[in-house]
Amino acid sequence: MKEQIRVCGIDDAPFDFGNRAAKATVIGTITRAPSYLEGVLKFEVSVDGDDATEKIQGALSTSRFLEQLRAVLIDGIALAGFNIVDIEALSNNLKVPVITVTREKPDMESIRNALSKYFDDWKERLEKLQMIPLVELSTAHNPIYVSYAGTTEDIAEKVIRATTIRGAIPEPIRMAHIIASGLVRGESKGKA
Amino acid sequence: MKEQIRVCGIDDAPFDFGNRAAKATVIGTITRAPSYLEGVLKFEVSVDGDDATEKIQGALSTSRFLEQLRAVLIDGIALAGFNIVDIEALSNNLKVPVITVTREKPDMESIRNALSKYFDDWKERLEKLQMIPLVELSTAHNPIYVSYAGTTEDIAEKVIRATTIRGAIPEPIRMAHIIASGLVRGESKGKA
Repeated sequence: MKEQIRVCGIDDAPFDFGNRAAKATVIGTITRAPSYLEGVLKFEVSVDGDDATEKIQGALSTSRFLEQLRAVLIDGIALAGFNIVDIEALSNNLKVPVITVTREKPDMESIRNALSKYFDDWKERLEKLQMIPLVELSTAHNPIYVSYAGTTEDIAEKVIRATTIRGAIPEPIRMAHIIASGLVRGESKGKA
Repeated sequence: MKEQIRVCGIDDAPFDFGNRAAKATVIGTITRAPSYLEGVLKFEVSVDGDDATEKIQGALSTSRFLEQLRAVLIDGIALAGFNIVDIEALSNNLKVPVITVTREKPDMESIRNALSKYFDDWKERLEKLQMIPLVELSTAHNPIYVSYAGTTEDIAEKVIRATTIRGAIPEPIRMAHIIASGLVRGESKGKA
């Protein structure tokens, strides 16, 4: 894999948990592999809402960085609680592979409950989510759980390896986490 | 110089130029040399005001990162227009070297005019500023202009070299610039 690939890493900021009138700030980092920060995007999504897919798409489709992107990496399949990202649709619309990375194995029971609460078509969405591949990837530390759309497992793994320096989480997501946290709290906390 | 040194890089976000009732957002990145982002600080200073020294000091003195810092790097001697940083006082109070870096040679005539407009004790401040060393440092690209307090020219140069990857600007400042810009505009612009 070409060393100079650019990817966008996405994570949400701390938000008012369970307050469904609230918005959560989301940060996207544009990173040249493995870790050279070239740009930052900021936008908002609704806590536990259903606009994450559209908001990521909106932020990237108007971005001068889009045409250079080889992948969009997201911290998990949902932002701001249970605002689930339709990674198939996002990848199709942006014409860029979308890859999600988490330390915890996605809890399908929680996802089912959230979907059934917010979406009339929750059964279809759940089925669709269940059709998305989920693979366990070993790292120097604990394993990570990876889903992907618009690409292959092999390429998803290569993108993750090409952008990971320390620990298990790729730099574009790790930096998005630190920036988002620092923004909202005044000083970043957590998984530094 | 130990490779693992941590420094804070500071830059301001785009602000409402000339609007002296306005605040400008300032971002500090905590970076392990050369470029590993470990934390982000956010605070505000007054446009063309006189609180930059105190606000930087406040953000860092309450930060869990302070005791690990080997230097504070600032994009120039002033934030948010002409909110001049007293780098001698800042370094004394934080007990950390403070180093400013600019691509443009500081314009002492503009600084004199700004000081005389905002400070009763502008003559003393100007004299003090003029006593701060200013050195030109060659880089692979254009030269940069460096001031420092609480350290030596030799160490200031080593800190800058240890944290510069591409171009002339050290990574902690370059990342602070990109984050600050992305924050305020929704998408970062400029010196990426």
